[in-house]
This record gives sequence, C-alpha cells and structure tokens, in this order.
Amino acid sequence: MTGTTPPTPWDTLPVRAELRGKSPYGAPQLDVPVRLNTNENPYPLPEELVERITERVREAARGLNRYPDRDAVELRTRLAAYLTETTGHRVGPTEVWAANGSNEVIQQLLQTFGGPGRTAIGFEPSYSMHALIARGTGTGWISGPRHEDFTIDVPAAERAIAEHRPDVVFVTTPNNPTGNSVPAETVLALYEAAQAAKPSMVVVDEAYVEFSHGGSLLPLLEGRPHLVVSRTMSKAFGAAGLRLGYLAAHPAVVDAVQLVRLPYHLSAVTQATALAALEHTGTLLRYVERLKTERDRLVTELRAIGYEVTESDANFVQFGRFDDARAVWRKILDRGVLVRDNGVPGWLRVTAGTPQENDAFLDAVRELKKEQSA
Amino acid sequence: MTGTTPPTPWDTLPVRAELRGKSPYGAPQLDVPVRLNTNENPYPLPEELVERITERVREAARGLNRYPDRDAVELRTRLAAYLTETTGHRVGPTEVWAANGSNEVIQQLLQTFGGPGRTAIGFEPSYSMHALIARGTGTGWISGPRHEDFTIDVPAAERAIAEHRPDVVFVTTPNNPTGNSVPAETVLALYEAAQAAKPSMVVVDEAYVEFSHGGSLLPLLEGRPHLVVSRTMSKAFGAAGLRLGYLAAHPAVVDAVQLVRLPYHLSAVTQATALAALEHTGTLLRYVERLKTERDRLVTELRAIGYEVTESDANFVQFGRFDDARAVWRKILDRGVLVRDNGVPGWLRVTAGTPQENDAFLDAVRELKKEQSA
Repeated sequence: MTGTTPPTPWDTLPVRAELRGKSPYGAPQLDVPVRLNTNENPYPLPEELVERITERVREAARGLNRYPDRDAVELRTRLAAYLTETTGHRVGPTEVWAANGSNEVIQQLLQTFGGPGRTAIGFEPSYSMHALIARGTGTGWISGPRHEDFTIDVPAAERAIAEHRPDVVFVTTPNNPTGNSVPAETVLALYEAAQAAKPSMVVVDEAYVEFSHGGSLLPLLEGRPHLVVSRTMSKAFGAAGLRLGYLAAHPAVVDAVQLVRLPYHLSAVTQATALAALEHTGTLLRYVERLKTERDRLVTELRAIGYEVTESDANFVQFGRFDDARAVWRKILDRGVLVRDNGVPGWLRVTAGTPQENDAFLDAVRELKKEQSA
Repeated sequence: MTGTTPPTPWDTLPVRAELRGKSPYGAPQLDVPVRLNTNENPYPLPEELVERITERVREAARGLNRYPDRDAVELRTRLAAYLTETTGHRVGPTEVWAANGSNEVIQQLLQTFGGPGRTAIGFEPSYSMHALIARGTGTGWISGPRHEDFTIDVPAAERAIAEHRPDVVFVTTPNNPTGNSVPAETVLALYEAAQAAKPSMVVVDEAYVEFSHGGSLLPLLEGRPHLVVSRTMSKAFGAAGLRLGYLAAHPAVVDAVQLVRLPYHLSAVTQATALAALEHTGTLLRYVERLKTERDRLVTELRAIGYEVTESDANFVQFGRFDDARAVWRKILDRGVLVRDNGVPGWLRVTAGTPQENDAFLDAVRELKKEQSA
C-alpha cells in the first residue's frame, strides 16, 4: 500500500496542457429576482415579432430535412442593408459574414489570421473572450495597456504593436466591461501601427455600438482591407438567445473566413429567426433608446450616491471604487440583485435593465453606501 | 512601368499559409430535380412535428432577450434518454454534450485533445471534415490505411498508431463515403493500440448508425474513458437544417470540452427545435426503416445493372467502378440527378432518396450502362 489515491479518468485524460486547471467561461447563472449581470436586453421581443419568428420558423421547419443555405445569402443581404441604413456607409452582402454569436465570428477570424505561431493583442480590461478564444485557437495572447481611466494609452499601444508585431489587434468599442468608447483617431492610429509592423488585422468589436452617443466606426472600412468590424444581435436586437454575430469587412476577408468556417454552421432556424428580427429593427431600436435613457440615469444616480462611474456608451455601467469588489458584489446579491464582477480590481459592472430593475439596483447600492457611512 | 499587376487585397491579406490556395468545403449546391448528393433525409418532418417545433420556438422566442441555457441540460437529458432507449446502454446527461452539428463537436474535441503540436489519424477515404477540422485547429493529420474493399486494415492501422502515436484516432462507422460499418473488434483493437501508444482519444463517428444493420458501439464506452461516440440529428432525424450534433463519453470528457466550447454556443431556438424533434423519435425512426429498404433496393438494383457496390449500412451507397468517375457524375447530372463525387478514384456516392427519386437515379445509370455497352 502506497497510500496514494488511484488516478481518476480526469487525471489520465490527454487534455492539452494549457487547458488543465482552467474553468469554463461564463457568468454564474443564479436564480435571482433582478439579473443585471450579462448585459442582456431586459425587454422581451414584441409579440408581433414573436409571431413573425414563429411563421418563419414554421416555414424553415418544413424544409429542415435539407441543409440550410450554407452561405446565408438572404441573411447577409439583410444585415448589409441594416448596416447601410444605420451607419450611412454602404455595405453589400459580400462584405458581411455571420456566425453563431460574435464569439464564433472571432473564433473564425483567429483561425484564419491567428493560430499557432501567431499572436493577438487586446487592451485590457476588455471582453475576456478575445483572450480565451485566442487560447482555444492556439494564438498567443498579448495584454496591451490602458490608462488608469480605462482609455487606451495610444503611444504605449503603438509601442506594444511595434514590439510584439501581433497578427491580430482587438479594439472593443464601446469597451466591455468599462463602457467607454474608443475614438476613431485611436483606431486609425492602431491600424497604422499594425500595418507598419506586419501587416496585421484590426478587429473592432462593436457589440454595444447601438447604445453609443457617437456612431459606428464602419465608415473606416473604406480603403482599409485589414480592418474588420464585428457586431451582434444579442444586445441591441434583444436576441441574446439567438446567438447571431456578424462582421463587416473587405470581401477578401469574408472569402478568407470561409476557408475555416464549418460548413452549414448557421442553422435554418437561426437564419429564419434572425431574418424575422431584421424585419423589426425600427421597434427594436426604440427599446435601445429607452435603455440609453436608463443607462444615463444609472450614471447620474450612481454619481449622486457617491460612486465613481466610468463614462458609458453601452447598455451597462462600470462603478466603484471598492477595496473589495467581490464583497460588495455579494452584498448586492444578498439584496436580490445580481451584477457582474469582471475581475477588474475595485470595480463592478451593472447592466441597464428596466426602470424597475434599475430602481431595485439603485436602492440596494444606496443602502450599502448608508451602511458604510453609518 | 514594370508591367506587373498591383497586389489585390486578397494577396496582401495575412491569411495563414496553410489556408492559401484552398477552397471552402462543401458539395456544389445545384438546382437539379433530384438531389442525392449530401445524404439528406428526403422526408420532410411530419406536419405535427412542424407544429410542435413552432410551439416550442414561440415559447423560446418570448425569452430570446435572455441568453440560452449555457449547459443545455434539458436537451442533453433528452438526448441521453434517446441513446439509452435505442441502444440499451444506460447514458446520463453528464455523459452527453451537444453542439451546432457534429462538425462543431469534432472541432471542440480537437481543440481539447488535438491542436498545435498534436496529431490525429483517420482511415481514408472517410468523412473529409475530420482532416479539414484538424487543419482548422492546427492539429497534424495522418492518413491511415484501408484495404482495397474499404475495410480498415487492422494490423496496418495498429502499426500506424504505434509509429505516429496520434493524440486522436477517428473511426467512422458506418463509414462515409464508402457505407461499410466497422466491427466492434476493430474499434477495440484500435482503442488498445491507441492506449498503448499514448494514451489517446478514440472518436467513433456514428453519424449514420441508425441506418445500420448492426447497432451502435455505444456500449463500448463502459470502462473506456478515452472513447467518444459522436452522433447527429441531421440524418436519421431528418433535420440537416437544424445543425445538432452530440457526443456520448465519460463525464470527464464532457467536462473537458466545456473548457473550449464558446459560451452559449447553442441557441435557444436550436435547443427548442431539437427538443421538439426528440418528442417524435418514433415517427422519425419509421422513416429510417423506409430508407433502409430503399438503400437495400439501390444496392440490389445497382448490382443487377452491373455496377460494383460497397456493402452499405448507411443512407447512401457507393458504386463504381469507373475509369473516369467525374465524367460519369456529369452524365448523371445531365439526366437531372445530382450524386456525389467524393474524390474516391473510380467511385461515386448516391444518397437513398424517396422511391421516386431512386427510380429516377436508377433509370439514369441504367441508360448509361446501355450506352456503354452499345
């Protein structure tokens, strides 16, 4: 008897070394009255859109024995029209690609332009899936700098790009989890630096752009074949459950990602549902206006209560500062409100919910502040 | 003036070297009266199932603003029940994982157990996506041997495994595009060889198993934590448009793939649609019986006409031999029937369609045979 425990199947499983000891990504899914932790849109789809989805899916289900349109041409055409209408920058279907969530879009981009022996850079804190998908695709990850106020430190970023010569540069605007937008001049400076170094691809992640005061950086695509703008229907369209992400870029980029996309990756029901939602953009963007008002109210009230708040152009607000953000997260949860601890020391993130949900959140943090002062 | 053409955006795009000059995977999507090229189930879903899908999706659409169940627990529970009912081997939800098509299942397996610096082996000709997904995940690919009759050459396969020590071994049964099943003893021999060499994972791709004369190899999972059985709802369930693949394996394997899965990868509409289909397995498996009869008729009639046919346990038949399979493919297409040229020299593949479709195909190849003899 040696006294050692026999190895479990997990111990002997030939998992890649860099995955050992890691946990799957994802916010805790807790059953709490007010969930303001995953930047979901609090407004259910309008009933007329639910009916339109039902009709379109019924039609798709009748042909479900056949593979879906592999190139999703109708969907890409409608997404291109939406981008053209909302940004004034003319985009055609050959410049648009869609996948199961912007995560899959980013994965395809990294499989095409990153991967083993290549690197990507992001300016952190930012959307943590960029780094995780880099790991999942064998792409080396470089954590780039930000200022104390969470804006990108452009000279330091340019130096990092010149030094590391990354193959892919991620810029999230509005940034998640901080909320602030990145000015066009910054993106242009990083694009120039990236071209000088390699050339490399610059991916502008605009998941939250519909909530911003400014506009999309889509017009920057003109004349910049190594720029990609990624988008999602999860937030502004109130369709997180649909998992529909897309990108706009030069047609050569769209051709290139098709070399790594899994064939028929977008199901017929996903395509049908997304097409139905795209018929109702007017209604959905009116909810966005309500959420922008609520977001601005959260910023104002949190500051009035005495918290620090990062400027927000998204449907969420980063607030602080806390000596122990985790402890505060727990205290807010004890009051029935789930916010997000993204691991940014001193800060938490709250999603703009309905007026009632935001009131519940504001009541909770107001109480906390009083407790602290007491 | 140098006279050289300026580089196009495609030329300067920093695409990975191994993707340059490649074409996206996929059968030609041609508008032809009889399409027997992609192993689709020719029977549309019954109307009562279409209605059930519609109901379930309506319900899902009402909560579409929220992220879907990240772990797809209800769906995995129902898939586990289906496997248990149809194989007699008890499987629980912690032993099942689902993704957008078996292609995504395979991609997740290769991201977890393959990837840069690792290799996978398959015995070719086989499902060509195994090699393509290996490439897309940076996994080295080894083409293993088969006998002239398309059965796996076990001693040669064992030697290849001992020599190359692959991290992942793919076994497709029934095999695509050849149609023949792999005996349990062969899988066991390869599993033993793979464990002796490394240990490595053995992935048994049972996409077509519901059409086989024998049964599933699922019971082999017992006591073999490095074995994985992958499945799909595309074929037997008549739901190619749904993109729902799944696997059964030791719970440790299911835990491991969650380290690379994109969070919320399975949309709420996909989960709803799959759950509806799983309520109707009885009806769907009756279509499978019809297709098995038709498949057997194709084998018999093709042989009667004078063609060679590989034994088939799937919903398709490989027939030949031809000096120029591509020319024969084109002649069959000229008669309004689309079959598949999978690049196996001398052979073509035809999917079992409806009796009428199969008659159209048989008429076409009968004519061809007469022309040849004339």
